[in-house]
This record gives sequence, C-alpha cells and structure tokens, in this order.
Amino acid sequence: MYDRFFRHPFMSRHGLAELDDRSVVEALCRVELALAQVEEEAGILPEGVSAQLAAVILPAHFDMDALAADVGKGGNVAIPFVKQAKAMLPEELRRYFHHGATSQDIVDSALMLLIKPRLEASLKQLALLRGGYGKLMRRYRDLPMIGRTLMQQAVPMTFGVKVAQWAAAMLKAEERLENVVQHGLFVQFGGPVGVHTGLGEHGLALMHALAGKLGLATPMLPWHTDRQPLLALMAALDGVAVGAEKNALDIALMCQSEVGELSEPAQEGVGGSSSMPHKSNPIGCGRIRAAARHIHAHYGVISTSGAQPLERGLGEWHAEWAPLLDAVVELEGALELLAALIDGLQVHEEAMARNLSHSLEALEQRPLAEYLGSSGAQVDRVLDALAVQTTTA
Amino acid sequence: MYDRFFRHPFMSRHGLAELDDRSVVEALCRVELALAQVEEEAGILPEGVSAQLAAVILPAHFDMDALAADVGKGGNVAIPFVKQAKAMLPEELRRYFHHGATSQDIVDSALMLLIKPRLEASLKQLALLRGGYGKLMRRYRDLPMIGRTLMQQAVPMTFGVKVAQWAAAMLKAEERLENVVQHGLFVQFGGPVGVHTGLGEHGLALMHALAGKLGLATPMLPWHTDRQPLLALMAALDGVAVGAEKNALDIALMCQSEVGELSEPAQEGVGGSSSMPHKSNPIGCGRIRAAARHIHAHYGVISTSGAQPLERGLGEWHAEWAPLLDAVVELEGALELLAALIDGLQVHEEAMARNLSHSLEALEQRPLAEYLGSSGAQVDRVLDALAVQTTTA
Amino acid sequence: MYDRFFRHPFMSRHGLAELDDRSVVEALCRVELALAQVEEEAGILPEGVSAQLAAVILPAHFDMDALAADVGKGGNVAIPFVKQAKAMLPEELRRYFHHGATSQDIVDSALMLLIKPRLEASLKQLALLRGGYGKLMRRYRDLPMIGRTLMQQAVPMTFGVKVAQWAAAMLKAEERLENVVQHGLFVQFGGPVGVHTGLGEHGLALMHALAGKLGLATPMLPWHTDRQPLLALMAALDGVAVGAEKNALDIALMCQSEVGELSEPAQEGVGGSSSMPHKSNPIGCGRIRAAARHIHAHYGVISTSGAQPLERGLGEWHAEWAPLLDAVVELEGALELLAALIDGLQVHEEAMARNLSHSLEALEQRPLAEYLGSSGAQVDRVLDALAVQTTTA
Amino acid sequence: MYDRFFRHPFMSRHGLAELDDRSVVEALCRVELALAQVEEEAGILPEGVSAQLAAVILPAHFDMDALAADVGKGGNVAIPFVKQAKAMLPEELRRYFHHGATSQDIVDSALMLLIKPRLEASLKQLALLRGGYGKLMRRYRDLPMIGRTLMQQAVPMTFGVKVAQWAAAMLKAEERLENVVQHGLFVQFGGPVGVHTGLGEHGLALMHALAGKLGLATPMLPWHTDRQPLLALMAALDGVAVGAEKNALDIALMCQSEVGELSEPAQEGVGGSSSMPHKSNPIGCGRIRAAARHIHAHYGVISTSGAQPLERGLGEWHAEWAPLLDAVVELEGALELLAALIDGLQVHEEAMARNLSHSLEALEQRPLAEYLGSSGAQVDRVLDALAVQTTTA
Repeated sequence: MYDRFFRHPFMSRHGLAELDDRSVVEALCRVELALAQVEEEAGILPEGVSAQLAAVILPAHFDMDALAADVGKGGNVAIPFVKQAKAMLPEELRRYFHHGATSQDIVDSALMLLIKPRLEASLKQLALLRGGYGKLMRRYRDLPMIGRTLMQQAVPMTFGVKVAQWAAAMLKAEERLENVVQHGLFVQFGGPVGVHTGLGEHGLALMHALAGKLGLATPMLPWHTDRQPLLALMAALDGVAVGAEKNALDIALMCQSEVGELSEPAQEGVGGSSSMPHKSNPIGCGRIRAAARHIHAHYGVISTSGAQPLERGLGEWHAEWAPLLDAVVELEGALELLAALIDGLQVHEEAMARNLSHSLEALEQRPLAEYLGSSGAQVDRVLDALAVQTTTA
Repeated sequence: MYDRFFRHPFMSRHGLAELDDRSVVEALCRVELALAQVEEEAGILPEGVSAQLAAVILPAHFDMDALAADVGKGGNVAIPFVKQAKAMLPEELRRYFHHGATSQDIVDSALMLLIKPRLEASLKQLALLRGGYGKLMRRYRDLPMIGRTLMQQAVPMTFGVKVAQWAAAMLKAEERLENVVQHGLFVQFGGPVGVHTGLGEHGLALMHALAGKLGLATPMLPWHTDRQPLLALMAALDGVAVGAEKNALDIALMCQSEVGELSEPAQEGVGGSSSMPHKSNPIGCGRIRAAARHIHAHYGVISTSGAQPLERGLGEWHAEWAPLLDAVVELEGALELLAALIDGLQVHEEAMARNLSHSLEALEQRPLAEYLGSSGAQVDRVLDALAVQTTTA
Repeated sequence: MYDRFFRHPFMSRHGLAELDDRSVVEALCRVELALAQVEEEAGILPEGVSAQLAAVILPAHFDMDALAADVGKGGNVAIPFVKQAKAMLPEELRRYFHHGATSQDIVDSALMLLIKPRLEASLKQLALLRGGYGKLMRRYRDLPMIGRTLMQQAVPMTFGVKVAQWAAAMLKAEERLENVVQHGLFVQFGGPVGVHTGLGEHGLALMHALAGKLGLATPMLPWHTDRQPLLALMAALDGVAVGAEKNALDIALMCQSEVGELSEPAQEGVGGSSSMPHKSNPIGCGRIRAAARHIHAHYGVISTSGAQPLERGLGEWHAEWAPLLDAVVELEGALELLAALIDGLQVHEEAMARNLSHSLEALEQRPLAEYLGSSGAQVDRVLDALAVQTTTA
Repeated sequence: MYDRFFRHPFMSRHGLAELDDRSVVEALCRVELALAQVEEEAGILPEGVSAQLAAVILPAHFDMDALAADVGKGGNVAIPFVKQAKAMLPEELRRYFHHGATSQDIVDSALMLLIKPRLEASLKQLALLRGGYGKLMRRYRDLPMIGRTLMQQAVPMTFGVKVAQWAAAMLKAEERLENVVQHGLFVQFGGPVGVHTGLGEHGLALMHALAGKLGLATPMLPWHTDRQPLLALMAALDGVAVGAEKNALDIALMCQSEVGELSEPAQEGVGGSSSMPHKSNPIGCGRIRAAARHIHAHYGVISTSGAQPLERGLGEWHAEWAPLLDAVVELEGALELLAALIDGLQVHEEAMARNLSHSLEALEQRPLAEYLGSSGAQVDRVLDALAVQTTTA
C-alpha cells in the first residue's frame, strides 16, 4: 500500500511493527477472554468456561483476510471477530463468549491495550530526550548567542537557556501525557446501551474487575458516547507534538545556511538531495514537523466527532480509530527522531559568536553579562526539575 | 459591528460585558503597576516609584480610540499602551514604567487576568449544572426508556442513567478545567527574549512575586514561545464544549417531533420561527452546538500555531488572542444555556413509554428490569460523585 | 469589546467600518423590500404594496439594541427584525411583509449582500498586488540570488522569478475568488422548508427575480441545507489566504537579520518594539500570517458544519455566520497589508549577492547563467499573464 | 497493519488495491522515463537514451522493502528510488536518468498520476449516483412528506424534492471535482529550485511536453511551493465529501426507529449488531460520515501546510502526501457506498404519510397542494440538469 512510502516515514518503524494485524486480533482476544474470566469469577459464567474458551480462541486461528473483508458490513471489527470466534467454539460454549458485551466494549478496550505500550514507548523517548537536554544544558549553560524575536535578532541570551526552554515545555507536555497513561486509559464495558443489560447489579463490578485484569483504568461509568477520555488523551498527544514541533522549528531555523548555529547529527545517507549532492538538509526536523501537522488534524477529528448521539455514534465513533492510532505512532516516531537529533546535535559556537557580534554592535554596549539576565538560573532550575523527574520516574 | 447579530448570540452576554475595552486597559494597567511594585519591593526601582506611577496610570486616562488605531503598527496593544502611559508620566518616571518587560509579558499576563474570572464563571455554571443533573437523576432514576445506538432503537435503559452519563462526562471535563484554572493560568514575565535581560538573577524571583501580586500561577520559566499552558487551557475548554455539545445533541434528538421525549423549557418568545408560528424549536441546543463548533476551531488555531519560532512568534502569537477570548466567552454562554436547559427540561414520560413499548415487542420479552442492568447503580454512583464535588467545591 | 485590540488589528479597518450594525439592518431591509417588489410584480401582492412597505421599513427606524438583545431567542436576527418591522406597519400591511419567506432566506441573502462589496474590495487589492508584482518582476528580472530548499541554500535563481512564483500563485487564487464573486454569490429564497410553501409554481421564478433585483446569482434550487455555495466561497478565500501567507512567510524569512535580503517598507512607528528600540520587525508579515491562520480555521467550521440536517440546520447553520464574515474582513485586511508590503518592499541587492557568493563557492563553478535556467522566461510568462488579466479586468 | 481493520473499512477497496506499492513505483518510473523521452526529443539527451533507460528501469526490478526502508533518510521516496535506479544502470547512462529533475518533480507528478484514475473512478460513482437520484425523483416526484427544520416537523414537502436537493448539491460538487480532474492535475517539473537549473530556456517547454506525455495539465510555472493546485483539488474533494455526508445524515435521520421513512438496502450480513440480532443499523451512512470527517481534517492539513517556505517545504510538503492519498480513496469509498445506498434505498411511504398526518393536524388545514409549492417544479428542474449532465458526460 502507498502507506509505506507516504505515511510510514513519519511514524515509528518499531511502533508500526508492534501494531500489525496480529496484535489487533491478540488484543481483541485478550479483552474477550479477560471478560469471560471476570464473569466466571463473579459466578455469571459456569466454572471452567473461561479456560475452555481460552483453549480455543487463539489469535492464530483467526482468518485475518476474512476479518478485514467483513469489517465494513457491520462497521467494526468486533462483529466479524465474534462471528469467527463463535464458529470456532462448540455449540454449548457459544453463548458464554462475548457475554453481555457490545462491539464497542471490545473495540475501545482493545484500542487502549494496543496504544498503551506505544505511549509507554513515547514516554521512554521523552526520558531519553530529557537526558539529551540535560547534557546540552550542562555543556552550553553559559554559551552566549543572540536571541531572536519576530524573526529578527533581538538581544543576547545563552544557548543553554534556549535548550532549557525546549526542555521546560517538554516537561509540561510529558507530565500531561504521563498522567493520561497512568490514569486515563480506561477499560470500556457497558453492553448494548451502556447499562450492562442482563447483568443486573454486577455490571459496574465486572467493569472494574475487567479493568484490573487488563491493566487499564476503571472509568466512573461506561463511556460509549462520553468521549472525554479520548479528548484528554489526544490533547496530551497534541501537546507533546507541539513541543517536538517547536523544537524542530527552532533547530531548522538555526540550521539555515546564513545562520549556521546548529546542524543535525551527521549520519551516512541522511539529509541528502536527489539533485544537489553538496546539500545537507535538516530532514529530521522536516519529518517531525510533518508528523506534528498530522497530529493536530487528528485531534480535530476527535474533537469534532466528540459529541456522539445517544448511546452509540453513527460514524462519529468509527471516525476515531485511524486518527487515534496514527497519532500514537506518529508521535512515537517524532520523539525517536527528536531524541536522536538532540543527542547528536552539532553546535557551532563560532557561528553563534559571529551572529551575536553583529547585534552587539547595534546594542548600546552594555556588558554582555547584563544581557544574559537569568539565563544561567533558568538552566539550573530546569536541570533540577529534570533530576527530580528522572529520580521519580 | 456585525458581531452583535452574528457572533454574540453564541456568547455569554454577561461575559462579553465584562470583557469590554475598559477591562482590557485595566488589565494592562494592573500588570504594569504590579510589576513596578514587585520591582520596587526587590529594590530595583526606587522607593515610592510604584505609588507615583499608580497615581498617574489610570485606565480612564487612556485614549481608547488611539490605542485601537495604533495596535496594528507594532502588532500588539502593549506598544501603544506603553507609549500613551509614558506620555502621561513626568520625564523622570518614564524609565521606571514597563521596566525590564516586553510586550508579550504584558499582553499574556493581561489575557490571563481577563479570562480568569470568566473561567470561574464557567465553573459556577458547571456547579449549577451539577445541581440540575442531580435533580433530574433523583427524579427519573428509574424511569425506563429505550436506548438508541447508531440512531436506532436498541434495548431499554432509564432516563436517569442517560442523565448520569451526561453528568459523568461533564464531571471529567469540569475537573480538567478546574485544574487549569487553579494551577494553569500563568503569569508571563521574561523581558525581551525571555531571560530577564538587565535584571540579572532577580528575574525568576520577580516573575514569582508578580504572579503572587496578580493572583496567577508561577511558571517554571517564561513561556513566550512555549505555548503548552495555552494548549492545556484550550484543550480543557474544548473538553467542556464537547460535553455540552453532546448533551445538546441528545436533547435535540429526543425533542424531535416523532420522538417527543423531551422539550426545552417553555419560555416566552424563545424557539419561535419567523414563518411557522406553531413550531417550537430547540434553539438552546442549536446555540450550544454552534458555540461548540467555534470552540473546536479555536483549539485548532492554538494547536497549529503552537510551534512558535525562537524567542517570539511572528503571527503565531498574534493569532492566539481572538480564538482564546472567543472560546472563553462562547463556553460561558454555552454553559449558561445548558444550565438553564437542564434546570427547566421538560420530560415527557408518556412519550418515553410509548417509544419503549414499540421496541419491547421486538425484544424477546425478558422482564424489563433485566434490561435495565446497572442503570440505577450508575445513577447512584454519579450522585455520590456530585455530592463529593459539591462538598469540596 | 476586546475585539478592537485583539481581533480587529488583523482585519481591514475599512471593511469593518462597512460591516457595522447599520449595514446589517440595511441589508435585511433590502432583501425584504426586494422580495415584496418581485412578489408585487408577479401579482402575488397587491399593486402598490411594496412602495408602501418601503416607505415605512427604513433602517433608521429599527431599534438596534433591541434587535441585538433578541437574536438569541429565536437564534437568528431575522426573527426580531421581522417582528420590529411588522410592528412598524399598519395592520393591513403586515401580512405582505416577509411573505412566503423564512428567516434563512433573509439572513443568507443579506449575508451575500454584505460580503459582496468586501470581496470586490479584496479583488481590487489583488489588482493592486498584481501591479506591485509586475513592477518588482520588471525591475529585478535578472537579479541573481540563492534559491533555498528545506531551509538550506541550494542553487541560484533570480529575485524576479521568486516574485513571479508569488504572482503566479496569486493569479490562480484570484481566479478562483473572482469566479465565486461573479457566479457564486447566490440569493436564498425557498420559504419554510425550501419548496416555496404557499407560492405554488411561482417560487422558482420569484427566486430568480429576487436574485436579479439584488444583484446576486440564481441558484438551481434554494440551498438552505445545501452548503456547497459556502464551501466553494470559503475555499476560494482560503486559497487567497494561503497565497498571502506564503508570500509573507518568504518575506519574513528573507528579512531575517542574518539573511537581510528584504525589508518591509519603512514607515513611521511601524514594526517597533516596546523594549528594543533598535529593532525593526516585519510586523506586516506577522499580521498577514495571523489572519491566514484564522481563515484556515474558519474554513474548518464551514466544512465540519457543511452536512446540515434535513431542511434547516440546528446550530450548523448558525455556526457559519461569524467565520464567514470574519474570513471576509480578515482576507481584505491581509491583502491591504500585502499590497502595501509588495509596493514598498525594500530589496537589498548587496545582501543577495553576498549570500549567493557563499553558495557559489560550494557549487562546482558552473557559469551563473546556467544555473538561472528558465528564470527569465518564467518572469516573462507571468508578466504576460498579468497583462492579460489587467486588460480583461 | 492496523489499517486493515481501522482505516480501510472507510475507503474504497478497489481504490486501495490500485494504490499499492507497485503502483507507486510504476508511477515513479513513468515520470522518470517520460522525462527522459521529452529531453531526448528536445535534443538534450542523446538519441536512443530514453529507450535504453526504459529497457532497464522496470518497476519489477526495484527492491520495495529497501525503498520503504530508506524513505526516511532523505525524507521522500524519490531519493532511494533514484539511487536504486542508477545502480541498475550502466555507468554511462546514469547521468541521463533524473536529468534536471528534483525529488519533488518526481513525487508530485507521480502523485498526480496515482490519483487521476481514482478521481475518475469517483466521477464514475457520481454518474451512477445521478442515475440513482433520477430514478428516485421520477418515482417519488409527488410523494408528500413532512419537511423538518431545526430538527422539528415544519410544513409539508415531497420526498421527490428532498432527493432533488441532494442531487442539486452533488451536481455542484461534481462540477468542481470534474473541473479539477480536467484542468487541475498538473505535472511538476522545475528542477532543484524551480527554475530548470542547467536546462536554460528549454525548461518551460520540457515541462509542457512532459505534461502531454503523462496526460497531466501544464501549470503556468512549477509549483513546488505554490500549493494552489492542491488546495483547489482538496477543496473539491471536501465539497463532494460534504455532499455525501449531508445525504447520509438525512438518510440516517429518516431511518430512525421513530421516523421510519427510509431504510438502507437490505443486504445479507450488513448492518448487524454483535449484541442485538433484531437491529438493522444504517451502517452505510455511518461509514460515509466517518470518511467525510476524515476528509475535512485532511483538507485542514493541506491548508495549514499551504504556505511553504522559499523553494521547498521542510515538513509542509511531506505532510501533504498521506492526507491527499487518504482523501482520494476515502472519497471513492464513500461514493461507492452512497451510490449503492441510493440505488437500493427503501422508501416507506406509509411512514411518510403517518408522520405527515401528525403535522397536518397542527397546521391550519390549508390544502396539501398549497404547501407543496414548487416541489414538483424543483424536481423537474434537477431532472433536466441531470439529463444535460448525463448527455454531455
């Protein structure tokens, strides 16, 4: 598919590999089987049934092509998945499979299972990034350079404080993301209209038990048409994306030929041009910026589809899946690129000095140190915060 | 201006009145004078200077038309504001005004001051709304109705649990908004390039003191081109907007002539038509939905403008103001409408019974109670959560 | 209102003045009175009635504050407008006013009347802009400079061809806008549900006659919930906005202190800074870029509200008004700024030569002319196109 | 990949199959070989060279996995593609391959080649759709039903005129799309910075010849950072998407259990539920609505990435690919669904009569025919327009 050439270059290769067909079916199985387990533990299903189901319902048994071919008919993958699963089961077990559940229970929960490790991978990249920022801040704490506002040279600052700014923004964004990963990836379980039809008072307890079994958070209520959890998640992703995008924009501007203060890490074959062999393009920055633009738009889909009618959306829910999954893998990719970029960033001190000297002449010759103001103190403050973050993580 | 007829009907009238020209200038004055105070307290300005400034720099002294006419020249209101202010001052005081500050310090801080009371007003509406939800939930806890998925009748639920769903979504959205209002409205103070040029080590302490004086939160660093605070704020607004929009969508669907389960509160002259006197339109729902659509787009501006170059945006920053202020007043308006709507909502039990009976025939005649599952328990859970929220608030 | 300081600086001052309260009421009157005229001409209203209505229904007689206060009740301005108008009329004339019309007929048609002269004003700015581009292209047809791709110096081109690129893009965008202004500003007239209730077969003929009377285009059918006309209009506005934004981005990049190839026209008091008197900011570019960002988001509202239910939107329609009007006045403002910017653009030939020389060393010393390729021919081609456009306009 | 379950169900299966890896490489080959041909014909390459290249550069020879693996390094597929191609060639032919071209020439042109047949397939679906609308209009020209505004019953209309409204909107949208397909799919050819470096005056003629060879339109100038062509294309796609989305929304509303005026075509296994066997969901409408929501967001990426810096974007260009291709295949899928839906739409006349009768009581008992106004005339007008369209197509 065209994706390989036109979408995947802006995604995490590793993340994509982890989100293949097979993983989707595994996640679907995991949700259904965990449900059977908790229903058995609650005495709703006969003893032993969940083990019997687990012995048959194996990801490898599913016909992936048939699944893919049938999604359109009912509009979601759970319908053909349940159909295939039931066909694998002996007649007497069938009614115990998917018991009390609705498609959205399975799909939403599986999506949360699928994205959780990817978000954790993003958090890992953010930790690496903190390491990279810290290294740069310590090394360049007092390296003066010219600050620039409205795309014009303004007054001096240090390169250290510029990195501190990048890091401080990312710390905030990371905190929001971490909060969502810790507390905001909710199990979905409500049955046909979100009231645990046929399960009586057990419903909420089952939802809680299922969350525990799957390592997901328990929501106050089922959230079939309450998309606040997704909004908070996507907003957190978008925040990190903006942090990465701003960092990439700054680096790209400082890499400009006439500015020359930074270069992307030199890497065999990276940043080349098909027509100009002498060029070195900050293509890492370009890829991060492309991914971030996609993520902004993905948030928009989630937001404009957030108001879902009555007990299940008709298109609003369905519209969420691709933007959600794409955003997760695009963010992971952008962070991999950014972490590598920061780790190997080439800092051209002589260019910083040269550019600074032009402006210093224009300024009324205050001593440089006066201009630098709180630059050093800001670096120290962020280094402290990084240290705390690293210790507690 | 056309706004009165085409934008303001989707905004809070009270909120708008509080955000007039004069309030903007008051906020600008407040920031500048608080800055002078903290600088005097830090020994940076001579004793008594801040009081001298405060005696002259009065909102009423500013020429609003001249201010408005000159914003374009420098691109922001702080430039003509500072110019007018200095012209009011005796020569010897001029250099103490706006000391160490840059336009963005004043504008960003003033914006936070302007929106804070409006967000608090929104939180107040959310508290009223909780009251309204609670009343409906208690009254209709066990009223059966048909649940609907993908725009089709599905299986029974209660009207109480539907309200509980609305309420649970809003509680989450409210929590995010409250968190931002409590901890996320930051003072801005960094000087020309965000390093407190000329203020030496005092910079960060001044920023902290200024925040305290203005009742705003202290950021880790100045955030001139780190727009994470705005992203978090706008995402919180958008979350509440989606909550209101979903609620309005459900009500509008249930108000449809053929469904007839709800009506908007009857109110003299509201919901009329220019051509069909017999109609009663759920215009409150319509206005809420319009406002929410605007707010989604406003988030988009903040998000796609989030990556701002180097030490100050060139257009990215400027693009934020109108969407931010609009979103705040639109949300306040939507919540006023929704709180009134919920408070006076007309519930037509007989229509619910009629619609339900059609589906019950199609279902295999399980007893109704079995269908209702956890409906009552869900209502109770949300009532408990509302009680906690109301007590702690 | 805060708009004066935070929204209007990114709009056309003249355009705004032309879109005040009074103009809105005038447009509403004009639509209603033209309708009465065509209905009288068709023999639907008694002879002389339209003149009698016109004698009473004068914009100056409307109570603007009452109008504004009442818009919310029915959700649109036509409802209180019709109410006030009827109250002005003697009993026997009342039923002839707004005859066969619905609110949306009046509001949509009035909006088209309001924006038409503004779009024509934008087309006038685009004509000025063509003049400016032509002047620059002729003057700098052969001035070599370095081309830059992915934010890096690449190979030589001319400044003339860069301007030709800006101009060619704008020609395309202008053509789309002109096409909409000529053929795409449609009258709205369909009555309560778009089928000319009560007017029998006259309906479509009345719609056509009304369009003629108002100088608007006749649609195939009423377009109450067919928003294709608005989509085409907004897409055209967005196209011009992107053209202006790209031009502003290029200028801002070339104005950077280290590049120095262009400056905005020097203008007393423009581009100053509140903290750094030595700076000259390309604030025209910044304002254009802010306006364009808003316009992109406005398109999004129109697009995500484009699918409107059945015979009238509930919020979807209402959401269109502010984005539409804002976009029109923001575009007019952006074009005024850009036309002035291009007209007075300062071109620093020595900086272009200096920047070029750095790259020429890196290139393998082909003769410069070889690099320039079709630069001159491209300029000539665009100059020809501009000449044609200017002649036919 | 997860796409099969979460993205592809909202796309054309056939369209996707036509846009696989292989097609991408074929399109890349086609562009490069056509370029060699026109350069040979212009005497720039030695006679016979293009045939020699064509003998070696065969899609089947490319290592797709290596291509996909290397896209990230330079940021676009043309770089590894050219590298692989040159490695296939004997030393003496290498400099004739990709002569005078830049990556963006190859990628943009190949994208146009890839999407052209898909857009033609969409036009074909639109023609089918016209047939379906015509059939419904003729059959139900005079079938009365209740019109509904603001989600409330209003006054009568006919089902025929409702279909006419859908059709009239689509005709406009189709016209815009057809115009783009006929005149707006441009070849890209400009060399490194868009001035045909090294090709002298030949550049523009080569661009024209290349367009002819590839069956694409010739632009005025190369459009590397003039994205007006893409904006017009995406706006046209979005217009058709809105048309389909509005149609799907209306159908979904009319399919509601309590309204019951329409049903989706009955189709084995379609519209089922995993938990409620009695339900029939209008899942075609849901899928169309999901696709349309994606397309709106894709337009947003193109629009907010439209202003690209200087002679090549850094991320802005790269961000376009996935949204463009996705939008094309999503639109094709939505139209396939809609054409089938309209073709087999089940119209429940008795439900229309029942719903109408409720409102007629409320109305003041005018004869029904008076209410219907121009309904029949509107149908006839659209039928005429469809006939013209069908004849000329």
